Amino acid sequence: MKKIRIGIVGYGNLGKGVELGITQNTDMELVGIFTRRKADTIELLTKNAKAYHINEAKKMTDIIDVMILCGGSKSDLPSQGVEFASMFNTVDGFDTHAKIPEYYDAMNQAALKSNKTSVISSGWDPGLFSVNRLYGDVVLPEGKNYTFWGKGVSQGHSDAIRRIEGVVDAKQYTIPKEEALMKVRDGHMPALSTRQKHLRECFVVAKEGSDLSRIETEIKTMPDYFSDYDTIVHFISKEELDRDHNKISHGGFVFQSGRTGIDNENNHIIEYRIKLDSNPDFTANVLLAFARATYRLNKEGKYGAKTVFDIAPAYLSMKSDEELRRTLL
Amino acid sequence: MKKIRIGIVGYGNLGKGVELGITQNTDMELVGIFTRRKADTIELLTKNAKAYHINEAKKMTDIIDVMILCGGSKSDLPSQGVEFASMFNTVDGFDTHAKIPEYYDAMNQAALKSNKTSVISSGWDPGLFSVNRLYGDVVLPEGKNYTFWGKGVSQGHSDAIRRIEGVVDAKQYTIPKEEALMKVRDGHMPALSTRQKHLRECFVVAKEGSDLSRIETEIKTMPDYFSDYDTIVHFISKEELDRDHNKISHGGFVFQSGRTGIDNENNHIIEYRIKLDSNPDFTANVLLAFARATYRLNKEGKYGAKTVFDIAPAYLSMKSDEELRRTLL
Repeated sequence: MKKIRIGIVGYGNLGKGVELGITQNTDMELVGIFTRRKADTIELLTKNAKAYHINEAKKMTDIIDVMILCGGSKSDLPSQGVEFASMFNTVDGFDTHAKIPEYYDAMNQAALKSNKTSVISSGWDPGLFSVNRLYGDVVLPEGKNYTFWGKGVSQGHSDAIRRIEGVVDAKQYTIPKEEALMKVRDGHMPALSTRQKHLRECFVVAKEGSDLSRIETEIKTMPDYFSDYDTIVHFISKEELDRDHNKISHGGFVFQSGRTGIDNENNHIIEYRIKLDSNPDFTANVLLAFARATYRLNKEGKYGAKTVFDIAPAYLSMKSDEELRRTLL
Repeated sequence: MKKIRIGIVGYGNLGKGVELGITQNTDMELVGIFTRRKADTIELLTKNAKAYHINEAKKMTDIIDVMILCGGSKSDLPSQGVEFASMFNTVDGFDTHAKIPEYYDAMNQAALKSNKTSVISSGWDPGLFSVNRLYGDVVLPEGKNYTFWGKGVSQGHSDAIRRIEGVVDAKQYTIPKEEALMKVRDGHMPALSTRQKHLRECFVVAKEGSDLSRIETEIKTMPDYFSDYDTIVHFISKEELDRDHNKISHGGFVFQSGRTGIDNENNHIIEYRIKLDSNPDFTANVLLAFARATYRLNKEGKYGAKTVFDIAPAYLSMKSDEELRRTLL
């Protein structure tokens, strides 16, 4: 069987996760990774592929079936996405929720023009969580949807702390509040404020001699990032941070709570939970499943941008429809 | 907007659940329910529809868009399914897992011949659980899948107990073992025997003067149903059974446990859990979401039998693709 030939754009944690994930998918092979760094300085984790400068990609349109875009949603994907969608089938995990409609339109135009297929915003949120929000919403329409994130590291919030004067390094964990989870599980469909849903716990390394209480106040009152939350700040040493907080674990919950019955007397709860040792590894594996779908959709002439909502589950699997019905249905 | 016109075949608990569920879906209307009983003896829960004898259905092919088949998988659907698939778009919850391939083929043939669309085996297992098994399998291919059922009433096992001499009535609960759930959640991918996964708890009303220990032994040693399980038997009065065990609640879990990383050092757990006050109400609501998909697929000329694997999530929702991207992605 001809394997699906994968390219990776960007070789950070996510790109490395994709590289490893390909070895778990026997119908795929890695052609190369594409980077803005000097390609000959890159050492790949696996042995069968090569690193290229990103500018080389355009010469390889006929030997790569799907390009996995592993750049960031803020600065990379908005320009890189469209550029690659005009040359390759692509998959990405664009995750700036508010800008998805705009990104979709741009990617859709580019992909339609080139007869390519681009799956955008796959991963876990957006991605698997979105799918679960949708299934929940349609089966319990008289209900309420809840998404919780964590426990896990928020890169954006960690960065925001690092920008405060006197901070050397920092890690921020988003933590769902146990009490809120219990209330949702009880089926009472509580209205929960931002503060009631999540806690923010920060581990901060401060420059020697800094005013710790000023730093703590600056964190806790930071608008958008912290001011709407209960925030806990710990000051620790650089050694402690590197030793105890070097994981990129994450997780989260999607709930749908709804009622049925002649007097709405029946409660139903759907709870979807993920617990990940490595956020980038897991995200990478989701992107790869959608890469398979991208490849197949394109073969069927289904061009343009797609999201996880547009893709029948069977497209994601190596197994035949007949095998799926026999083994997983 | 033109509503999707729904018919219901069979008016037991599931049929009644569908009738109520339609009131939660503003793009649907109920045309009628079809029964083998005398139609004029049926009192519907809602006011806007009528009961008909099942033989009347064939005259109503032009005023019903989707027929929801609410008969049992054992005796009703194998014949009824094919008969209705040759006249209507249909949705059913055929749940005899081992016979799905055979049922699929029969329904596919009938529906293709009539240019109709039949979604089979929707509901929660098969159905939502199947979808979760598939998503789990594709994102964590180096992993293991676990399905647990309960706590909930198993109709088949309750029936089996009732057939024992001296038993007046009985209710059997399937209960996942907490220890097994914990082991799976820990990420160790345990091999679990049938006995290790589920417990069977039986509440039995015996005829006065029966030999209770003989009944208990007959239950516990019954092949296929109980002999592979730890089974607990309680003898109670008919009043207690009617008072304390009249609910048709159910639930269950689908787990995917898998590993990633250069040395498989990262564990990931996906846990999907449902907790239902009313098994038939919830199942009915799932069938209705898939009825919407059936209707749309048929409009697009996608004929034949389909399963939950073949249907892109967006087909299930009343919301437009644009709204889905904006609100649920």
